[in-house]
Amino acid sequence: MKLVGISGAIIGSKTAKIVDEVLTRAKAYGPEIDIELIDLKDYLVEMVDGRPLESYNDDTKNVIGKIIDADFFVIGTPVYQASIPGVLKNLLDHLPVTVFESKVVGYVSTAGSSHHSLVAENQLRPILSFFKAIVATKSVFVPNDSFNKESQIIDEDIDRRLTELSQELVYLQTKLANT
Amino acid sequence: MKLVGISGAIIGSKTAKIVDEVLTRAKAYGPEIDIELIDLKDYLVEMVDGRPLESYNDDTKNVIGKIIDADFFVIGTPVYQASIPGVLKNLLDHLPVTVFESKVVGYVSTAGSSHHSLVAENQLRPILSFFKAIVATKSVFVPNDSFNKESQIIDEDIDRRLTELSQELVYLQTKLANT
Amino acid sequence: MKLVGISGAIIGSKTAKIVDEVLTRAKAYGPEIDIELIDLKDYLVEMVDGRPLESYNDDTKNVIGKIIDADFFVIGTPVYQASIPGVLKNLLDHLPVTVFESKVVGYVSTAGSSHHSLVAENQLRPILSFFKAIVATKSVFVPNDSFNKESQIIDEDIDRRLTELSQELVYLQTKLANT
Amino acid sequence: MKLVGISGAIIGSKTAKIVDEVLTRAKAYGPEIDIELIDLKDYLVEMVDGRPLESYNDDTKNVIGKIIDADFFVIGTPVYQASIPGVLKNLLDHLPVTVFESKVVGYVSTAGSSHHSLVAENQLRPILSFFKAIVATKSVFVPNDSFNKESQIIDEDIDRRLTELSQELVYLQTKLANT
Repeated sequence: MKLVGISGAIIGSKTAKIVDEVLTRAKAYGPEIDIELIDLKDYLVEMVDGRPLESYNDDTKNVIGKIIDADFFVIGTPVYQASIPGVLKNLLDHLPVTVFESKVVGYVSTAGSSHHSLVAENQLRPILSFFKAIVATKSVFVPNDSFNKESQIIDEDIDRRLTELSQELVYLQTKLANT
Repeated sequence: MKLVGISGAIIGSKTAKIVDEVLTRAKAYGPEIDIELIDLKDYLVEMVDGRPLESYNDDTKNVIGKIIDADFFVIGTPVYQASIPGVLKNLLDHLPVTVFESKVVGYVSTAGSSHHSLVAENQLRPILSFFKAIVATKSVFVPNDSFNKESQIIDEDIDRRLTELSQELVYLQTKLANT
Repeated sequence: MKLVGISGAIIGSKTAKIVDEVLTRAKAYGPEIDIELIDLKDYLVEMVDGRPLESYNDDTKNVIGKIIDADFFVIGTPVYQASIPGVLKNLLDHLPVTVFESKVVGYVSTAGSSHHSLVAENQLRPILSFFKAIVATKSVFVPNDSFNKESQIIDEDIDRRLTELSQELVYLQTKLANT
Repeated sequence: MKLVGISGAIIGSKTAKIVDEVLTRAKAYGPEIDIELIDLKDYLVEMVDGRPLESYNDDTKNVIGKIIDADFFVIGTPVYQASIPGVLKNLLDHLPVTVFESKVVGYVSTAGSSHHSLVAENQLRPILSFFKAIVATKSVFVPNDSFNKESQIIDEDIDRRLTELSQELVYLQTKLANT
């Protein structure tokens, strides 16, 4: 039972940090699950341009393959221009339409100001609905001032909510997995 | 285990018909569940105006009580001015913020044209997200030409999808119910 | 040239206060315009239930008439359950679909927390788009702590932005009015 | 006075075709305006990765420069996974936040089915709102069956609406341009 985290940022480290936190806490709550972080910063995913999948580079095929093989997900997105970044949308454009169908997916978002706290709800969640994902209820918005200079989370409410999301993901997956 | 259907229209019969279909099919799939249709046409729910709940009329208190007591839900909405009707939003305004928390909720919508098929996704689902509902993945949009003159569903695809939504509701509720 | 403000709250006074501010500032900027505040608290608008318009009470017909006769608009909404209130949506449900077509419309919203600052953008603006309004670019979200106990606006940034919205409304209307 | 069309697709030709139609019709209506089509298929715009603008390739800088220099806009988007494509969002991510401020912007979208007709409204327009654009009211959704095999528009309603959008863009720009 594998939980894959997707960090949809190739600038900065906060989004990957938060996704990694969710993975680590999920693993602590459900030690039997496998976790893997796909940090888009570590892969050169090519732009979707109509080629058949086998023509794309290895990073592209590798990332898509990992996502197809996973059982449940947490997606992290920064906020760029009041939406998700092009680099994350491009990854989603690569995926088969059934990839998240009836699968558990949670999400987190990061931005400078709480004015952007509904962006993921309005711009990412409709995409997850289109994919027919079972979306976790406890998505977390993490404003930049939740971190100290060492990129540790110092906001207690955010800290608690990340744990709740992690546990909800494991709970939903455990209950819903066809066994 | 009680499934309540809420029909958010007080004009016309199509929305109530569709909600009732989901209830009936859910009952056929899971005979142990109880079902009840709350058709807003049958109740005079007062406008939310800041009074304490006990000051509202019996219909208002009755409907709210039924919703609070239910275990899972299907909500039906027509499309008015590219959104859900005021009468449905007013009912949602009455509800305690925890009423749908971690509960399974599906939705269906009806309208004249398929151009409105994303309205419920964009206007109702964010409200369900706010309520932290677990939203069924198989929501159904039912255009008016899916019905014959006797208000029977004649569109086979819609018919099949209503069954799928009904079964998903029972499936999710059965898996997730704390037993 | 008449600017009508619609305050979509029947509980509390903040939304009406903000709409009134926009009206007053617009009048100061363009003394030739007429202004009027429609505070839904002052009218008993009946629920849309399919009757012909002439069957509704005088308040309902009066409010609809004022809106039909106006040239441009500012709409104020509080945030209820992550959307606009039922009472405001119900008013919009009463309106003819051409009422805002190619007319200038601005909006403001009020709520307790800046986490709700995108609600009007996501829940009210799509309705204005449906109506084919020319939506002012400078909509303002006003958190509750922008006011002092005497309901005066003490947040300087909010104060400045309300003036900018007021002036934009007059500017757009003046430029676009068919003369 | 320059109208730039941005076609946000690098697969297929329908989106570029529609954007080009709007440009041509706008030119016919306002012969004094200059028009230019930016078809993303003709440019290799790099992924936003945090570098300073001068480090990107010539295509990237060229496209951004053309957009910054333009006066008003029409943006065309296909629908990928219930949203705009990553390649278009990535271009928007490159742009300075003031690029569309108080400028007239229209949009058109293309997809296989009218079930997607609200995608641009829900996924592109909030981004234009964030940029504080004055959004044209007559956006057009163009389903694939509006074209014949020679990619000519054969749907009369779509044809008329594209003309209306073109004329609205010129009208708004002419009225609002600071002269």
